[in-house]
Amino acid sequence: MAGSVLPPGVSRRRFLSAVGTAGGAGAMFATMGALGLAPTAHASPRYEPPRRSDFALTGRGAAKVVVLGGGIAGLAAAYELTKGGYDCTVLEAADRPGGRNFTARGGTVQTDLRGDTQTAAFSEGIYLNAGPARIAQWMVTLDYCRELGVPVEVFTNTNASAFVYNEAAGMRQPERIRTTKADVYGYVSELLAKATDRGALDSELTATDKERLLDFLRDWGAIGNKASGWRYAGTSRRGYSTDPGAGDQAGVPLGPVPSLARTFAEGAGRYLSFDFAYEQAMLMFQPVGGMDRIPLALARALGPRRLRLRTAVTGITNTADKVGVAFLEPNGTQGHLVADFCVAALPPRVLARIPHNLGPEIQAALGKWQIGTAAKIGLEYRSRWWETDCRIYGGITHTDLDIERIWYPSHGFHGPRGLLVNYCYGNHARQYGDLAPDARAQRAVEQGVKIHGGKHRTELASAFSVAWHLMPHIESAWATPPLGTPAYQLLGKPAGRVYFAGDWLTHLTAWQAGAFESARLAVRQLHERVLSP
Amino acid sequence: MAGSVLPPGVSRRRFLSAVGTAGGAGAMFATMGALGLAPTAHASPRYEPPRRSDFALTGRGAAKVVVLGGGIAGLAAAYELTKGGYDCTVLEAADRPGGRNFTARGGTVQTDLRGDTQTAAFSEGIYLNAGPARIAQWMVTLDYCRELGVPVEVFTNTNASAFVYNEAAGMRQPERIRTTKADVYGYVSELLAKATDRGALDSELTATDKERLLDFLRDWGAIGNKASGWRYAGTSRRGYSTDPGAGDQAGVPLGPVPSLARTFAEGAGRYLSFDFAYEQAMLMFQPVGGMDRIPLALARALGPRRLRLRTAVTGITNTADKVGVAFLEPNGTQGHLVADFCVAALPPRVLARIPHNLGPEIQAALGKWQIGTAAKIGLEYRSRWWETDCRIYGGITHTDLDIERIWYPSHGFHGPRGLLVNYCYGNHARQYGDLAPDARAQRAVEQGVKIHGGKHRTELASAFSVAWHLMPHIESAWATPPLGTPAYQLLGKPAGRVYFAGDWLTHLTAWQAGAFESARLAVRQLHERVLSP
Repeated sequence: MAGSVLPPGVSRRRFLSAVGTAGGAGAMFATMGALGLAPTAHASPRYEPPRRSDFALTGRGAAKVVVLGGGIAGLAAAYELTKGGYDCTVLEAADRPGGRNFTARGGTVQTDLRGDTQTAAFSEGIYLNAGPARIAQWMVTLDYCRELGVPVEVFTNTNASAFVYNEAAGMRQPERIRTTKADVYGYVSELLAKATDRGALDSELTATDKERLLDFLRDWGAIGNKASGWRYAGTSRRGYSTDPGAGDQAGVPLGPVPSLARTFAEGAGRYLSFDFAYEQAMLMFQPVGGMDRIPLALARALGPRRLRLRTAVTGITNTADKVGVAFLEPNGTQGHLVADFCVAALPPRVLARIPHNLGPEIQAALGKWQIGTAAKIGLEYRSRWWETDCRIYGGITHTDLDIERIWYPSHGFHGPRGLLVNYCYGNHARQYGDLAPDARAQRAVEQGVKIHGGKHRTELASAFSVAWHLMPHIESAWATPPLGTPAYQLLGKPAGRVYFAGDWLTHLTAWQAGAFESARLAVRQLHERVLSP
Repeated sequence: MAGSVLPPGVSRRRFLSAVGTAGGAGAMFATMGALGLAPTAHASPRYEPPRRSDFALTGRGAAKVVVLGGGIAGLAAAYELTKGGYDCTVLEAADRPGGRNFTARGGTVQTDLRGDTQTAAFSEGIYLNAGPARIAQWMVTLDYCRELGVPVEVFTNTNASAFVYNEAAGMRQPERIRTTKADVYGYVSELLAKATDRGALDSELTATDKERLLDFLRDWGAIGNKASGWRYAGTSRRGYSTDPGAGDQAGVPLGPVPSLARTFAEGAGRYLSFDFAYEQAMLMFQPVGGMDRIPLALARALGPRRLRLRTAVTGITNTADKVGVAFLEPNGTQGHLVADFCVAALPPRVLARIPHNLGPEIQAALGKWQIGTAAKIGLEYRSRWWETDCRIYGGITHTDLDIERIWYPSHGFHGPRGLLVNYCYGNHARQYGDLAPDARAQRAVEQGVKIHGGKHRTELASAFSVAWHLMPHIESAWATPPLGTPAYQLLGKPAGRVYFAGDWLTHLTAWQAGAFESARLAVRQLHERVLSP
């Protein structure tokens, strides 16, 4: 919450009331904007939720809103509108809130579009965040965790002790990320120091620059001095084959150091930039107990009356002063609901299949989003051998295998059991999706054996997987927006009384933060309209 | 625990018994070594604790051992010996176990060697790990946490959102680590790509190497292509001044990008290698609830009878078949204890001041360790403004100020309060130590204001600090061993019936892991001697 910028002793409501009386609603809106209470032209308006008191001057009451879809965008829109006294109803086709925010636990049952039904056999405390699983520090998702009382803990997005493995590039065995980093940075330093020293960069660097650069490279790459030819010859940063210890156990640094040519041929360096991205940089976070703590907390805040599960939308009719929504009740009978406004928070392709009267332009626009898919395969093990045998406590192993990567659990360290997650995209996800659930797990296990050996197979206890293009009512992992096109602009505004919301309408596609930000934008637009003269 | 290598159906004891009968103790020891049960010449013997059953063949009983010092090394030595049935007594001068493993909580009282007494006024859940605070994944410390049932969580040793700040180098304001990293790696890439492209490294690189290197640099440094002159012109990896969001909020990447010359002049890149070290690389860990969960668990395992607190050693007398130890009882009277062996697990300089009959060579050797100091200043705040205002959830800010660094808490995210820690070494630690506790906090707060502005002062709730050279019975943060010298070799072996233990006798100085490893080595030596014919 921003600190108040009002004169001391003046309440927000009294201040706005005085402005409204003197200058009309236009002046009031401008003032609200300056106070961070209403949208302005600024790129990043400070968000302030609707409040019941906002209606004091208008003589209007809060409107009735039907929200289509109980994913994060839909839940958040209803949650924010409810703060202002709006009468919201969320219609969700599935039997749980959250949409792609889906956490599978022991007993979770899921039937996919191929008709395969899985029942998760996970032990107590084991779960798979099948959809979103990590939160960056700057994302609004953390603010919702704080506001909703959902505790968070570190999500281990990177770990120097995890592995990289490029089978196709001829790597003979997996290598610790720390080892790859030491070698790549060592050789980069050696090469740049040599070139600098040879005068090859004299047009870019002054003598002082060169001195500073060489100082930096010697430390950062752990290379030798000028006399040694700036040579990279390995470093204890690579790790040890025998760790340093007591007495005369100095430790045996890991060797041998591969040649420069082999280091770059193996291509493992490509993974080093993974967490440079603004969205992926550590530290990252997750809710304690599973990502679905967020939609469950939103659903709890809304209450059961406002959230109707197992209720699939079958039609949207926009009129001059109302929106009608048809749906199937949980018992299969047809239902109908009339509201002042609608927030359609469904994936674009799913929305496009629902009969509506929003016009062909809207329908065409909904088809412009590019559907992406991804699959997660959760493998529960009856021991945490990656901790005891490999000394890997969390983080991600990156590979060029079809499982792409192995996530080690970020919680439950030293516990009796744990879950590894394979997370792959695109064609790999489709290939895994084409298999029956058991065959997916079997294939993933055999890939992981290349990294971890036999225990990756023999300690397996159970598996549960989701290929997102096969998930009913969702049918994709994300939808990439046609940014900057008329279609994107069109759906960023309401179609009559229907507002659109979802991460697909943001620059944060595939992140929950996008769903939250989009919900806020739709709520702001809707509330402004309701308040406007 | 290693898997058994014995033939099926053969118990460990029966097998050893058979070998002992056939080949004598020498054969038995060699066999034990091969089974990982006794020391061998191998650099990294697998540790196996003494067991009561080890005495079955020798006709001897477990001996009585007096342990001097209830820090990690002393507690661990007693804990391991007790597994074999040894009768251990630990004498600890302070009123708590743990030594440098010291966690201050609300109510903790500590008087330093200057005579200043502090009582920590921390709120519930707030603590300062004044000594060791982080555990690397490969360290044996984690095995003790698992064995003792001490839960662990991630220690946030690095965070891209934390700051770097080099005041002396003319930095105008603190910069996020992510920004420094993007600029330094961007310019390193630009320079190396240019030099490579100009042929300056043709004697080192084949055409294929060059192609692979340039591919790597383009991605890793986020630089332009050949046509752009491989130019680094900033990247969203630097962060945003306005984050990406919904609708047309594409986000405004942080600018402007400093020049290459300024980037290296500011020297912030020096901090980027901090976590490349084998001891510092993320992921790192801490016990849930405070580091002293480890000594408290060890003390609980030993039981109150074996651990005598407020008992300061005043004399050590080694004889042909016994060791006598004199001490002051908690009530100030003189006490005396006779044992078969002694494990002296005190800091070397403190040990050197205790009268003993171990000879001048031992006394001289104890003086060869270099004393290091460090100070930690814990600042409790009544709000977690670094999370809400700065979006920093954990990690470390690095500076060239005298506070050196600011640690943000690794636990209690989104809680009402939190503790920042300033951690400095050497002269800075002595300077802070020279101040009274209140003045230390005041000075540290003013330094931190340069990074964080007013809230670093105005939100302060309480402070507690430790300068380790002023800590009674310890008097240093660590003691750097004279590795490879006769002094180091000498104290690595027993002096008569007195064994030495502590991180100061290892290649892991200043790490708890060193204390544990040293204790294991002493226990192994002692047990082997007791078992030997």
